[in-house]
Amino acid sequence: MKILVIGGGGMVGVKLVNRLAADGKLGASAISKITRHDVVLAPPPPVSDFPIDTLIGDLSTPGEAEKLVALRPDVIFHLAAIVSGEAEADFEKGYRINLDGTRFLLEAIRKVGQGYKPKLVFTSSIAVFGAPFPEAIGDEFFTTPLTSYGTQKAICELLLSDYSRRGFVDGVGLRFPTICVRPGKPNLAASGFFSNIIREPLAGLEAVLPVGEDVRHWHASPRSATGFLLHAASMDTSALGNRRIVTLPGVSCTVGEQIAALRKVAGDKVVARIRREPNETIMKIVSGWPRNFDARRGRELGFVSETSFEEIIRVHIADELGGKIA
Amino acid sequence: MKILVIGGGGMVGVKLVNRLAADGKLGASAISKITRHDVVLAPPPPVSDFPIDTLIGDLSTPGEAEKLVALRPDVIFHLAAIVSGEAEADFEKGYRINLDGTRFLLEAIRKVGQGYKPKLVFTSSIAVFGAPFPEAIGDEFFTTPLTSYGTQKAICELLLSDYSRRGFVDGVGLRFPTICVRPGKPNLAASGFFSNIIREPLAGLEAVLPVGEDVRHWHASPRSATGFLLHAASMDTSALGNRRIVTLPGVSCTVGEQIAALRKVAGDKVVARIRREPNETIMKIVSGWPRNFDARRGRELGFVSETSFEEIIRVHIADELGGKIA
Repeated sequence: MKILVIGGGGMVGVKLVNRLAADGKLGASAISKITRHDVVLAPPPPVSDFPIDTLIGDLSTPGEAEKLVALRPDVIFHLAAIVSGEAEADFEKGYRINLDGTRFLLEAIRKVGQGYKPKLVFTSSIAVFGAPFPEAIGDEFFTTPLTSYGTQKAICELLLSDYSRRGFVDGVGLRFPTICVRPGKPNLAASGFFSNIIREPLAGLEAVLPVGEDVRHWHASPRSATGFLLHAASMDTSALGNRRIVTLPGVSCTVGEQIAALRKVAGDKVVARIRREPNETIMKIVSGWPRNFDARRGRELGFVSETSFEEIIRVHIADELGGKIA
Repeated sequence: MKILVIGGGGMVGVKLVNRLAADGKLGASAISKITRHDVVLAPPPPVSDFPIDTLIGDLSTPGEAEKLVALRPDVIFHLAAIVSGEAEADFEKGYRINLDGTRFLLEAIRKVGQGYKPKLVFTSSIAVFGAPFPEAIGDEFFTTPLTSYGTQKAICELLLSDYSRRGFVDGVGLRFPTICVRPGKPNLAASGFFSNIIREPLAGLEAVLPVGEDVRHWHASPRSATGFLLHAASMDTSALGNRRIVTLPGVSCTVGEQIAALRKVAGDKVVARIRREPNETIMKIVSGWPRNFDARRGRELGFVSETSFEEIIRVHIADELGGKIA
């Protein structure tokens, strides 16, 4: 089985390739090759029993998708996107990368014909939803994005579904929760604080909390993210019917509950490293974000996430900190 | 006020221009000019107190949208599309006309800048929904189209909403019911029979009914269609917030109820001109179509339709038959 990971240089892409290299197989199929593609150079590939190639390029450049599809991957993970803030700041770039890139990929696959019909796992986002929301967003709630990023993801969901219905590709679109705790350094993403207030204190560093403790959001760990992708790639998609998009399970909790879980796991000394610094801009952005889901269908389809924020913290400590707290 | 009607050669476009010519104004604003645009030649323009220009062209041809936007219309009605059956039969043409054409228009408007922000009324369709459905589809039900046409309309809805949110255009997207009774000759559209079984018998001709009497569907008259467009063009869009798409009100009834209404209005002799000729292909297509809506928001926003199928038949007799039945 040949696997292509578009966006292989990102946090989730790197973890996915590491896991595939360790497993040596996807579902019941032995992996013969992985190709990683991204605009930036990915870290050195992990040790593996099969070749792992690395290509640098931009999916939204004409001809790039054809080049990738010429490799005839059996499974494609399409994780490439620019983030919400950048798509909002640069309108044209967002539509080019997040919409046109995906459409180019779908078109390149369609034009192969000759029975070529790869599995395509696409990462969408809960940003396809926009306030006002019900208490918990159900599986049949409509998509009214309040960002260009969310709009682009919602459009790609529709394209993926139509290309699947027409038999050009075997697509699954996954609406990812916010991935928490993100490893690495604090970044400028408006959602960054959800991870920062856990990761930094656990590493002995101070973190800024720009919103109130009553802010509720929807989380899953990086380990769950990899699990979601592997399950989507190996599942029997006939269970999806023509509804190719899945809202994934996650943990709904408030910032206050996040902090309480951190206190339980790591104590008052660690929690004391969180500094309150209210930021009106971030508060306003976050107020339009989904808070809670009834992700019944995703669970019924076999997708598994953590069930408490405490579990999310323990996964972070195990996977990123070698079990140690500073 | 300058008005542009894209798709001005179609049934709805012609009726809209006739109505605008008769009214001489849109809302409180006097009309200074109408430009009609279509790939086919529209009928001669109606008598009017202002110029009515006619342009022939294809919105999906590069440069065409810029040419239209260069006229700086204050209000744009975008009615142009290829129909469901054609978009399903010709995949590339459907995406080119129904998606790229609309995107070209939005981009042409955005690139003007300088505070240019026309009102854009876009005709979407209940084809954005796909079975299985609840008993009545509510205003927050998700879009899972089962045709490429429905997919293209749902994508244009998302684009229109995002371009409106960003302040490039003042958009309203209208999910039209099936327009019934369509004037003219029977056509090959799978939905044609809903109109054929009323229009043809009223004109003294035989009509074929390819489905059972229990088939339920969602209708509004051509007169209502014009009313929807005029209301959307003159309403204060601040009432829409960021939710620029409106499911319009209509009449939900079964084919049996359509026939009963025809009998009440025109008698047994007219109803006897309906010939049952079951068609499995059409039955299968129709089984995936929406049957009923709870279009509360559309009514609250001031959109008005008929409230019974009998009323729809009487509108047809008044508007198309000069009040006479054959």
